[in-house]
Amino acid sequence: MSGRLSVVGLGPGEAAVRTPQAEAALAAATDLVGYGPYLARVAAAPAQARHPSDNREEVARACHALGLAADGRHVAVVSSGDAGVFGMASAVFEAIEAGPPAWRRLEVEVVPGISAMFAAAARIGAPLGHDFCAISLSDNLKPWEVVAQRLRAAAGAGFVVALYNPLSRARPWQLGAAFDLLRPILPGATPVVFATAVTRPEERIDVTTLADADQARADMRTLVLVGTKATRRVERPSAPPWLYAPRRGCA
Amino acid sequence: MSGRLSVVGLGPGEAAVRTPQAEAALAAATDLVGYGPYLARVAAAPAQARHPSDNREEVARACHALGLAADGRHVAVVSSGDAGVFGMASAVFEAIEAGPPAWRRLEVEVVPGISAMFAAAARIGAPLGHDFCAISLSDNLKPWEVVAQRLRAAAGAGFVVALYNPLSRARPWQLGAAFDLLRPILPGATPVVFATAVTRPEERIDVTTLADADQARADMRTLVLVGTKATRRVERPSAPPWLYAPRRGCA
Repeated sequence: MSGRLSVVGLGPGEAAVRTPQAEAALAAATDLVGYGPYLARVAAAPAQARHPSDNREEVARACHALGLAADGRHVAVVSSGDAGVFGMASAVFEAIEAGPPAWRRLEVEVVPGISAMFAAAARIGAPLGHDFCAISLSDNLKPWEVVAQRLRAAAGAGFVVALYNPLSRARPWQLGAAFDLLRPILPGATPVVFATAVTRPEERIDVTTLADADQARADMRTLVLVGTKATRRVERPSAPPWLYAPRRGCA
Repeated sequence: MSGRLSVVGLGPGEAAVRTPQAEAALAAATDLVGYGPYLARVAAAPAQARHPSDNREEVARACHALGLAADGRHVAVVSSGDAGVFGMASAVFEAIEAGPPAWRRLEVEVVPGISAMFAAAARIGAPLGHDFCAISLSDNLKPWEVVAQRLRAAAGAGFVVALYNPLSRARPWQLGAAFDLLRPILPGATPVVFATAVTRPEERIDVTTLADADQARADMRTLVLVGTKATRRVERPSAPPWLYAPRRGCA
């Protein structure tokens, strides 16, 4: 058997937001590799080995998966959302680049998924309907000054901003610092959305403004969206407002 | 019957990259509304009315769909990729905001899809694996100077850039102008990807560099990705290289 490896985006949560292509890649695997809580979202199949691992061990997990594939297994590495967006795909290619030459001969595919940012946006309208960017607030691997520079550049140029990895127990201040950086650049009325556990039973969507944005509303499962001067708010009777980015894309 | 409207992201092309949630929204509709070639991707269902329209009539199409929903129909408005990313969702909310108050009481949902940028990225590795942005090069609705400012800001701050609507018969020079703007900011060796008709039978992926990037490689179906100084290229024997953004996200 010739080994292969699929990096599979599971989508944000429920299986209805997972593509048939992803389901087929999962079903064809002899081995599933991933962060434990993500693996738990995949229905059990007989004769399929599961290799759960802890968080923040991406490269070790990728090397393990590549080793299994090099031994002839059909491996699916799972990632939440889209595997290419702050997910496992980059870790797999980092491991391939640094690993034995044989790993470059493996059949590797990346299966895209519905990203957290698009699932969150869909829940409240079309806030990403024009030019936008995604920034990870994690400074585990890049200096905070790089994060700060990107926040300033994005807000100054009129991009809607999606903030990934807003905070964690080990990084408790980054989201508040991001709001503080943005406040001199954007009006206080700029819409801010906290979208937590989107499409999961515990989903929670809070819409507020930059002036009132409080990082205490976020946890590790939260995706934060920051609008622009152009973002529109459509009030509705007896329902939360819709937010959208007008197609002209500027104020 | 109480009317409702779903804005459905069909994904980039083949049905294997369309979610069950999207299929369910299409199947539940009494009326399908959309740009003709996108409607043609949806399997015919008996007793379902189809309302194809031409390109560049987004707001008229949205008003038509909302009028049908206000008459009690169950309407699905289709969009390629993710409906919230330079798709029909913004046009629908623009129409709701400007339309009769009754439209604000309609049940409206946005169903996310696999966006062209993530489908394209998956085909060549993980080039969007760190901070990135999406910019529409269309200056039909926003001044070119806004586009230019966003390109400079994004490249200067180290974002990977996905270029939507790179060019058309009516806008033949914008993509070349974008490359010219980026060349003084990014090294000539920066990877550039032309991903055309991703997941469709005529799919074509060209990997080149910013120095060699020629807008003649693109057409209306092309998504262009521009890397950063940090983008890595992993050579493979007898196969095209992988591209990825390292998880540290900066050079």
